[in-house]
Amino acid sequence: MKPIDLDEKLSRFNDHWSPRIIASVNGQEVKLVKFSGSFDWHSHADADEMFVVLKGSFTMEFRDHSVELTQGQMIVVPKGVEHRPVAEAECSVMLVEPAGLLNTGDGEESDRTTSGTWIESDEAASD
Amino acid sequence: MKPIDLDEKLSRFNDHWSPRIIASVNGQEVKLVKFSGSFDWHSHADADEMFVVLKGSFTMEFRDHSVELTQGQMIVVPKGVEHRPVAEAECSVMLVEPAGLLNTGDGEESDRTTSGTWIESDEAASD
Repeated sequence: MKPIDLDEKLSRFNDHWSPRIIASVNGQEVKLVKFSGSFDWHSHADADEMFVVLKGSFTMEFRDHSVELTQGQMIVVPKGVEHRPVAEAECSVMLVEPAGLLNTGDGEESDRTTSGTWIESDEAASD
Repeated sequence: MKPIDLDEKLSRFNDHWSPRIIASVNGQEVKLVKFSGSFDWHSHADADEMFVVLKGSFTMEFRDHSVELTQGQMIVVPKGVEHRPVAEAECSVMLVEPAGLLNTGDGEESDRTTSGTWIESDEAASD
């Protein structure tokens, strides 16, 4: 078994709103994602969604308030609650959510809709 | 809703091997724990266990190899796999594991056995 290095995984992609799956734990998937700009309003009827800020900061907008999150802070958006992440500058985030969850939730699908793609284990990536 | 600040939560306790629960997500609990020294060999028959190093470093010992983990690295110990965390110096770790999981797993209970205790939400703790 090898450690999963969050910085190394983050260095492997540059696109925004496109989660990469790095681990699986008890039916949940752990994903890394880079935010920039505004995402779509959505909710997940049956899934809580955890966001941990690894680098930068972003705002989690809810319909009645907003929460500012900076590096080293996290939030769990409970199932059914409409939300929209907004990042003025690029922000790197770790997600924990049920395997297969779509990022646009119960909202309309768009060209950003995805359940994430695995970053393969990096046998050759260690130095 | 408020952000959960990992450093602020870590500042609230100093004891070792005694996880504090900071969030719940889809039946999993997110816990913070400080390691120092060696824990007991154990496994969890039905639970994967995720460890993310927030500060410091530790070694996850398995029966046939060891994995060194430093800040910004993580590992998922699959269900059923015997393991033992060992930290030469204090190390702060975030765990994700099923709610109610005992830290000593299927091993013998000891005075360190716990499923963790909640740190209450900190309405007055923000500055």
